[in-house]
Amino acid sequence: MAKRVTGPEIEKLIQLLAKVPGLGPRSARRAALHLIKKKDQLLGPLGSAMGEAYDKVKVCSHCGNVDTIDPCTVCTDDRRDQSVIIVVEDVSDLWALERAGVMNAAYHVLGGTLSPLDGVGPDDLNIKGLIDRVSEGGVKEIIIAVNATVEGQTTAHYITDRLADLGVAITRLAHGVPVGGELDYLDEGTLSAALRARTAI
Amino acid sequence: MAKRVTGPEIEKLIQLLAKVPGLGPRSARRAALHLIKKKDQLLGPLGSAMGEAYDKVKVCSHCGNVDTIDPCTVCTDDRRDQSVIIVVEDVSDLWALERAGVMNAAYHVLGGTLSPLDGVGPDDLNIKGLIDRVSEGGVKEIIIAVNATVEGQTTAHYITDRLADLGVAITRLAHGVPVGGELDYLDEGTLSAALRARTAI
Repeated sequence: MAKRVTGPEIEKLIQLLAKVPGLGPRSARRAALHLIKKKDQLLGPLGSAMGEAYDKVKVCSHCGNVDTIDPCTVCTDDRRDQSVIIVVEDVSDLWALERAGVMNAAYHVLGGTLSPLDGVGPDDLNIKGLIDRVSEGGVKEIIIAVNATVEGQTTAHYITDRLADLGVAITRLAHGVPVGGELDYLDEGTLSAALRARTAI
Repeated sequence: MAKRVTGPEIEKLIQLLAKVPGLGPRSARRAALHLIKKKDQLLGPLGSAMGEAYDKVKVCSHCGNVDTIDPCTVCTDDRRDQSVIIVVEDVSDLWALERAGVMNAAYHVLGGTLSPLDGVGPDDLNIKGLIDRVSEGGVKEIIIAVNATVEGQTTAHYITDRLADLGVAITRLAHGVPVGGELDYLDEGTLSAALRARTAI
């Protein structure tokens, strides 16, 4: 703004809101005005919720999930099959797979992928934690659910090598046509994977 | 989420973030994870900024602007020409006009437009406050800068009528072709207004 038209506290709120993914400078102003209009229903509760999350949030020392308890809700859930571990890149992938709601398994969050060009090596990811969990015994299957990108696949190969001698089954997500996807828009790699992995009707 | 995968504090944060305009349920999860990753740079400061805004924000009793002081930054700015009042529907319009940075005037926020169908009458808008400001004297011009919608124009007519006998100049924003606009995409109303208000080159 060319000249100050409102208090520094509100301008600071707008500046910080603009850093939230999904909001830019213009939508941050709109969001700030909406929050102020809904002061008691939204601004106050959201501020408190952020403060509470700030105080309580921790990363699970066991699997890398984000929670307010450590070990996290998933690791302490005894209705889950803790002998199956789904390995993901990021917490958002864990949450996405849980929304699918198919598996009742444990998780392990790597915190990224191997990327030598960006200086990300095995020690920068939570791979040692995964090997420790498997070495402790009781694990039957590792499902590697990293992204189907070059970095993801490199990471998957590396983990498979490291786990090879630990006597645990290692699987990966199936490649194929996304549900609702149109063949015409899919790349050759996906189509050839889907053809090779065709199933009987 | 089908099953709980994280603490209730974090789920509450996601639920509240989803109510912020510009964010939906999916982007609220993404935003929450980003905030948690940038705990000290973003989550903490944003929570504090919201708390501070919640405690300090007020609506200016003079013009209706949102600020942390009352009268607001605009009303107390003695470098502004307080004899010209720009009448807007909403605080966001005040901020938008200030970004244009053309006028160095005072403002008056109506808080909406007349809309009999929605039960919004003159008493629901801050029209009396405007008439009081003009009646107190010292005001030379009222620029009516409401939206160019049916409701906005109805409101403009009503205000013009109410101010008619107070001996103050009343103007409105020019209609015309938006800067950067293509004629082919403009409606007939805008084009005919732009033709009628043509200016010498």
